[in-house]
Amino acid sequence: MDLHPLLEPIRFLVGSWHGTGRGEYPTIESFGYREDVSFLAGPGKPFLFYTQRTRSEADAPLHSEAGYVRMTPDGPELVVAQPTGLVEVHGGELTGTTLVFESTTVGATETAKAVERVVRRITGAGETLSYTLDMAYAGVPLTVHLAATLYRV
Amino acid sequence: MDLHPLLEPIRFLVGSWHGTGRGEYPTIESFGYREDVSFLAGPGKPFLFYTQRTRSEADAPLHSEAGYVRMTPDGPELVVAQPTGLVEVHGGELTGTTLVFESTTVGATETAKAVERVVRRITGAGETLSYTLDMAYAGVPLTVHLAATLYRV
Repeated sequence: MDLHPLLEPIRFLVGSWHGTGRGEYPTIESFGYREDVSFLAGPGKPFLFYTQRTRSEADAPLHSEAGYVRMTPDGPELVVAQPTGLVEVHGGELTGTTLVFESTTVGATETAKAVERVVRRITGAGETLSYTLDMAYAGVPLTVHLAATLYRV
Repeated sequence: MDLHPLLEPIRFLVGSWHGTGRGEYPTIESFGYREDVSFLAGPGKPFLFYTQRTRSEADAPLHSEAGYVRMTPDGPELVVAQPTGLVEVHGGELTGTTLVFESTTVGATETAKAVERVVRRITGAGETLSYTLDMAYAGVPLTVHLAATLYRV
């Protein structure tokens, strides 16, 4: 596929992925989940459209989110919107096939539970994509919340 | 279709829409565009997944965005992410079949062109959906930027 030249270093992300993950946080009971993720290249533009959905081990819908990974001459950036009423704005760094995004803004609607800070690490290894998500929330400092391993579908 | 009860008042939004619009702003030349919009109900949850794409009259890809319309007991809310590196968080009001969203936060990545404020008005009338988008940007106070009329597909 013809990608925008700025996207070449993150070609490893492009595609659809399925796998399982585990959620935990000091304020909740740990849980397992199944996940579908897509990173789709737009028409000749230097961004990927990102969508994600998770389901519980009992197959109930859990989380979803959508956004864009932008590749700029100054490095990667990420914006995400969530039906929980949150948005995230991230600056990032790419090292090999590992992307690390650190939030610069986390916005929330009036009725949403505000999150203070989010760090997302995504690593590609051929047909495998793994990620972790750490967050600072409800007075808890930056702590691991999600970790998943996905396979190309 | 079974919608979450909180979504009943905005059932008029649900579906896929196509039409044309016009963009203008004091800082740019006016332009026409074609647009595809979807508002899709999630699985029993009180939000709609919103996606949008526009193309120029010469059929080149222009803008796209994705987000969620949330219906809460306190009223509608909207979160949007854009590949331009922007996110919007809105509080809203529903009057009949008109939704008015006013931004409470507009976030931007480091390399994005920050927008100060956005107001989105969406009106449903059966098989027609029309909207306007006003924005405050680059020192220009809140001014109309986009207006479009879409038809159910």
